[in-house]
Amino acid sequence: MADADHATQRPLANGRTRIDFQTEPARYRHWRLTIDGDVATLTMDVDEKAALFEGYDLKLNSYDLGVDIELADAIERLRFEQPQVRVVVLRSAKPRVFSAGANIRMLAGSSHAHKVNFCKFTNETRNGIEDLSEHSGLKSICAINGTAAGGGYELALATDHIMLVDDGSAAVSLPELPLLAVLPGTGGLTRVADKRKVRRDHADAFCTTEEGVKGKRARDWRLVDEVVPGSKFDEAIAARAKEFAAQSRRNGTGPGIKLAPLTRSFAPDSIGYGTVAVEFARAERIATITLRGPAAPPPAAAEAMVALGSNFWPLASARELDDAILHIRLNELDVAAIVFKSSGDPNEVLAYEGFLDANKDHWLAREIRLFWKRVLKRIDLTSRSLVALIEPGSCFAGTLAELAFASDRSYMLIGTRDGDNNPPATIALADVNFGAYPMSNGLTRLECRFLANPADVEAVKAERGKMLDAETAQQLGLVTFALDDIDWDDEVRVFLEERASFSPDALTGMEANLRFAGPETMESKIFARLTAWQNWIFQRPNAIGEEGALKRYGTGQKPVFDTKRV
Amino acid sequence: MADADHATQRPLANGRTRIDFQTEPARYRHWRLTIDGDVATLTMDVDEKAALFEGYDLKLNSYDLGVDIELADAIERLRFEQPQVRVVVLRSAKPRVFSAGANIRMLAGSSHAHKVNFCKFTNETRNGIEDLSEHSGLKSICAINGTAAGGGYELALATDHIMLVDDGSAAVSLPELPLLAVLPGTGGLTRVADKRKVRRDHADAFCTTEEGVKGKRARDWRLVDEVVPGSKFDEAIAARAKEFAAQSRRNGTGPGIKLAPLTRSFAPDSIGYGTVAVEFARAERIATITLRGPAAPPPAAAEAMVALGSNFWPLASARELDDAILHIRLNELDVAAIVFKSSGDPNEVLAYEGFLDANKDHWLAREIRLFWKRVLKRIDLTSRSLVALIEPGSCFAGTLAELAFASDRSYMLIGTRDGDNNPPATIALADVNFGAYPMSNGLTRLECRFLANPADVEAVKAERGKMLDAETAQQLGLVTFALDDIDWDDEVRVFLEERASFSPDALTGMEANLRFAGPETMESKIFARLTAWQNWIFQRPNAIGEEGALKRYGTGQKPVFDTKRV
Repeated sequence: MADADHATQRPLANGRTRIDFQTEPARYRHWRLTIDGDVATLTMDVDEKAALFEGYDLKLNSYDLGVDIELADAIERLRFEQPQVRVVVLRSAKPRVFSAGANIRMLAGSSHAHKVNFCKFTNETRNGIEDLSEHSGLKSICAINGTAAGGGYELALATDHIMLVDDGSAAVSLPELPLLAVLPGTGGLTRVADKRKVRRDHADAFCTTEEGVKGKRARDWRLVDEVVPGSKFDEAIAARAKEFAAQSRRNGTGPGIKLAPLTRSFAPDSIGYGTVAVEFARAERIATITLRGPAAPPPAAAEAMVALGSNFWPLASARELDDAILHIRLNELDVAAIVFKSSGDPNEVLAYEGFLDANKDHWLAREIRLFWKRVLKRIDLTSRSLVALIEPGSCFAGTLAELAFASDRSYMLIGTRDGDNNPPATIALADVNFGAYPMSNGLTRLECRFLANPADVEAVKAERGKMLDAETAQQLGLVTFALDDIDWDDEVRVFLEERASFSPDALTGMEANLRFAGPETMESKIFARLTAWQNWIFQRPNAIGEEGALKRYGTGQKPVFDTKRV
Repeated sequence: MADADHATQRPLANGRTRIDFQTEPARYRHWRLTIDGDVATLTMDVDEKAALFEGYDLKLNSYDLGVDIELADAIERLRFEQPQVRVVVLRSAKPRVFSAGANIRMLAGSSHAHKVNFCKFTNETRNGIEDLSEHSGLKSICAINGTAAGGGYELALATDHIMLVDDGSAAVSLPELPLLAVLPGTGGLTRVADKRKVRRDHADAFCTTEEGVKGKRARDWRLVDEVVPGSKFDEAIAARAKEFAAQSRRNGTGPGIKLAPLTRSFAPDSIGYGTVAVEFARAERIATITLRGPAAPPPAAAEAMVALGSNFWPLASARELDDAILHIRLNELDVAAIVFKSSGDPNEVLAYEGFLDANKDHWLAREIRLFWKRVLKRIDLTSRSLVALIEPGSCFAGTLAELAFASDRSYMLIGTRDGDNNPPATIALADVNFGAYPMSNGLTRLECRFLANPADVEAVKAERGKMLDAETAQQLGLVTFALDDIDWDDEVRVFLEERASFSPDALTGMEANLRFAGPETMESKIFARLTAWQNWIFQRPNAIGEEGALKRYGTGQKPVFDTKRV
């Protein structure tokens, strides 16, 4: 049928054929990362001619996904390459402008799918900034030297402390509603209401005032933390950075590790990484991601882990898996289901878990587990059907077992296959499955899975370290279906065919509701309540129709709205 | 601009010109309410020829909004007219069919706005069934004698106990996704995941299996509470009803009161009720709802309240306000803002609060407060801008003050107006503002308002019973803006004009995010996460396009989907 999108996606700039999530500081076009002792400064200086897509300029520190990919990269590098940094200050290099937010022409010329995926990634990046503060102790300060509009202010909202210059014109604003008939798409409404706890009538006034709020009112309404005269701005920032650094409990010492470029090879129907392989069955609309277990036992000591750096298996596999997921999300929109497979020795995987547990106070071990936490959350929020196929020769143990629990269903083969020397499939749990990897709702995947009966969590906890066969795993509730070799092929095929036959939209909606039983957090509210409403609005003619606000922005013509309230 | 809907709304049947939410048992076409001591039976027997709109028959106990209006009415009558009833059994009069759920042809021929409003009302009705159990002690049992599909099963999910006949064919199902490419729209996914805590992989399998699940598996997967052989079904239902009645803590004694038909007069631009008046300023797209305070002091004793019955002021005003809100929601789609006003003596309103507090253990006083709780929740969930104008002569005290706290903004006039004898505006708080009326997120409106600083709740609590003038109310954070007479007209006019100029969709999305800071509950998850995703899907061509599943259902043609996953 016809494309559901009202806009055709603009072509990528400079002849690019795919969106690449890999970058490094030497290649940044939009940010500068500078380090001075325990204080990092991340300066936004968007190159307006270096947009990701053709057809728009990134004026006034407005951004597109390309700008955010650099930001996300810089944050990761602070974690791994600069363990001594205790505070990061976000600033702008443009005079009197912090950031104009997401580029409007980019949005107006984006397909619905791109808009949704763009918002999802920028949300993940901002949640990552908050995670950096909460779990790594690396505090963040946003120094707003002028206009912080829309996504510009939303970036500020993700930091621990917002400083606004008081020069009679600098203001924070969320002008999306009055200007564009859409919502602030990167957590703005949720953070205003839930993080900064702005009173709802003040929030209402703020979010409907195109020019925003400045000075004392911005502070009184809790929109910023302090307002500073221009003449004292730099001094105040330096003082605040020093204070926050002193309060930080980040304990990284010694040099960081270098996040080396990923080894990747793209073929038409596959991507090869060092420890991860992706295969596309295009006719069936399936992407199979196979994770290979470690090729060698863990090192003897933390120093050796540091020496291995980004080649250390748990980190290498997390980075490669993350890249594969992002690639599928943004570049492979026709994939209906992601199949997770693994190969290797589950005992070796457990040995790595033991090593990371033994070194859990080492900054690098902690950062690796935090990275895996974020990759797993990214998988939870990936709008494709997820299935784990647990077969002979696989190693779904510890962290890798989380992939089965993150899946919508899992199938596990009983026994071995004829003519196959691989040992029967097992699942093995470790301490890491019981706390290290909370979902965005705050529960571990096993807590969420066994919400009906928390005793079931205790029952499987007692099985840590054991190699659980298919029938035991099914009995314990760890897998959906344990199948004989005779039934396997048909059952799995029918399931995947069925999945490809359903409406992709309905699956996205169903999965968003079934994956997150239990409590909600600010983060889950952003991805559920806010994002779902924004996706709805992104489909409405009042925003995206020919006479809608996004299309008419900048034309001098006013938008025409269907006045019916829904 | 062109109507945003892909479907034009069908005309109402039988020449009706508006959807009416008032009915009574003698006029029911679809339900029978029978009472036997402390057990009520509510039998679904949908008259297929009595649809609300033209163009479809309500076969197999499928339903439309008209059917649900009767159900909602029956539930209210159990509360007020049958205080001795302790358990209600939901049954079907159709052989081998409990209910086929929402009528598909009705959905396929409904405008987007009607679909959204239909789902909202049916959700409120089901939440009301749960509230009936939790807060009034009136337990509910659903006896499923055959097929309970989609909305039919969702109705069962709202009860305390689901019994399924075990006859080899009776099954529960949520076939919306495989059949229609939409979600179960009445809380099904949320109740499966969060209320019944069905394991997510089982939920995934259940919600993608058109034919549903029957017998032992339905119980093992927690989809029903018990499975009963056909020969013992009636006996088991009677036994279970007796058990639940025995456990009930409902303490209503004596006869109930009669919910008399509302006195209403409809004019082209107004509706008059006994204590409520609605005026439409159509050019400005404003509906003003004015509540009149009590005309007489409260009665001396509970018996007199019972004797007044539905004429008792707090109950009369709640019923009339509820009807006005529902009317605006469904019949007045162009209204951008609802303005709340009041007139009367705030001391009299407080006197009624005192009366209800003094009689809080009386079943009728409790039911009246519970009714107000639900009306206020309905207002919270009404997707129109809400504003309270607190003017001289008004009586925003106690329960009526909640209307100001439910509003997106409130404006309060300082002092008096020239040539106006009315006393200056006041706000007055009472105990009722501090617990009786939780929002769907579980917080009182004042707790939600003062989320940043719970001490502010204590500060205003200390002011209970005082007549707070505009400047004091603003200082305490109870109103948004206190304005002089000089500024009033312009400020209010500009605000309302601005509101009418914004995109209605963006306002709906913004308000859904700003109104509910703080925790989430199952109820708030239904209205936020689930509903927003459903609304999105209801806009997608895969569901509603010419080749979409809703349009092609029953034509013999398969739907054609845009395969891109968003």
